[in-house]
Amino acid sequence: MTIHEIKVGDSASITKTISESDVYLFAGITGDFNPAHVDEESTKETAFHGRIAHGMLIASFISTILGMKLPGPGTIYMGQELRFVRPVRLGDTITAVGTVSAINLDKRIVILDTICKNQSGAVVIEGHATVRPPQ
Amino acid sequence: MTIHEIKVGDSASITKTISESDVYLFAGITGDFNPAHVDEESTKETAFHGRIAHGMLIASFISTILGMKLPGPGTIYMGQELRFVRPVRLGDTITAVGTVSAINLDKRIVILDTICKNQSGAVVIEGHATVRPPQ
Amino acid sequence: MTIHEIKVGDSASITKTISESDVYLFAGITGDFNPAHVDEESTKETAFHGRIAHGMLIASFISTILGMKLPGPGTIYMGQELRFVRPVRLGDTITAVGTVSAINLDKRIVILDTICKNQSGAVVIEGHATVRPPQ
Amino acid sequence: MTIHEIKVGDSASITKTISESDVYLFAGITGDFNPAHVDEESTKETAFHGRIAHGMLIASFISTILGMKLPGPGTIYMGQELRFVRPVRLGDTITAVGTVSAINLDKRIVILDTICKNQSGAVVIEGHATVRPPQ
Repeated sequence: MTIHEIKVGDSASITKTISESDVYLFAGITGDFNPAHVDEESTKETAFHGRIAHGMLIASFISTILGMKLPGPGTIYMGQELRFVRPVRLGDTITAVGTVSAINLDKRIVILDTICKNQSGAVVIEGHATVRPPQ
Repeated sequence: MTIHEIKVGDSASITKTISESDVYLFAGITGDFNPAHVDEESTKETAFHGRIAHGMLIASFISTILGMKLPGPGTIYMGQELRFVRPVRLGDTITAVGTVSAINLDKRIVILDTICKNQSGAVVIEGHATVRPPQ
Repeated sequence: MTIHEIKVGDSASITKTISESDVYLFAGITGDFNPAHVDEESTKETAFHGRIAHGMLIASFISTILGMKLPGPGTIYMGQELRFVRPVRLGDTITAVGTVSAINLDKRIVILDTICKNQSGAVVIEGHATVRPPQ
Repeated sequence: MTIHEIKVGDSASITKTISESDVYLFAGITGDFNPAHVDEESTKETAFHGRIAHGMLIASFISTILGMKLPGPGTIYMGQELRFVRPVRLGDTITAVGTVSAINLDKRIVILDTICKNQSGAVVIEGHATVRPPQ
């Protein structure tokens, strides 16, 4: 979608149940073997009762929405602000949602509110993305 | 490291050559099959001369620094701001660096400048992270 | 095996318990993030009570039999017909079986009945394969 | 899309450059370690000059189109016929295309021509799919 086809309030989402294999492959790509993500034994007694997903793994679903759906292929990802609000446990089902909040035609920039929620509807990540839609 | 062991100016880094398998596994975890990342043919003629890595893949190395090195295991990742400045091509060698820029003892919060550079020293991502070090 | 070593009725099989990581990696390779495969929440209430494996993932075990066992390395895979009869749930143990049903010496072609069953013996995929054995 | 929203001639596609990591992960899931796919040394002297992708890996992109785009989520995949016409080398860029060729409203069944082509436009797989669109 070009900037002229996008309206404030437009929205797109993606949902995935976060598996141990997601977290382990992500650890393997990034080298982030923080015990919080890969050590079940040492995390059993924590407030989260076991391993949690990397926050940046969950945040990456926002990129999927931007590049695949809204605005879609050809989009230039300019910036992202993230607040990690709650942990995501293995087995949680996450829905990432991007909603257009502002459009700057002169600079050809679109701002989206970007929120990730779990299966209970609780926000786990909030923030906003800055993108340049394809021409 | 606890907040009392951290000083402004402390720094840590990680370096990795970004492989096609990194990008393909990341696409596989996130579902981000944007042609910019997985279609060599359609990207050959672009300004980048081929596929580029997902920006969030590169940004995730910042998380690795925070959780593994500075402050290290036990850190709570509270927030991240990112500006995607340049693309990263397959085969580029990226160094992510986190440098402590501010410490708030009352709120037990540490701010780090977070920068990712390529093998030429050009900045590809800049921003800052907000973390709570372990007690 | 060459076509002269193969007899009608010859059979080979392979068995694997289908894990969540199988399904997630397959989704990652193909980009098939259909909620039926990756969203536990939205599939909990379906007739299948949760996520199911991609049919083509299961069908791919037929290729393993042909290329590894019967006729084995050097085989040219010419064609495959598939009917997806029942879903495969995560944790199901699938046995794929190929049984030679016809041999055409002139065209150097072998036809196999190809069936995948679950741990209860119920057929999940049926069809047949056309191959050219190695010389 | 429901069957009433689908017209003969409707089409959808997906494109991906096939990497070594795709082929190796697919081999790992299916156990198909046929030398044609994983042994560079023994395949260097073959007509294909090196390793080729599993045919069923390429065919699986058809499933991605059906489940993600046309008809999309909720589709029941009933059957698939495949003819493997040409090999796919590592590094080839494959476009899978599904085009609706027949609609049976009584049986609620849609038939699609399914073709996979390489970057030169040469057909590597042809066949057709039978699906039941979501209600």
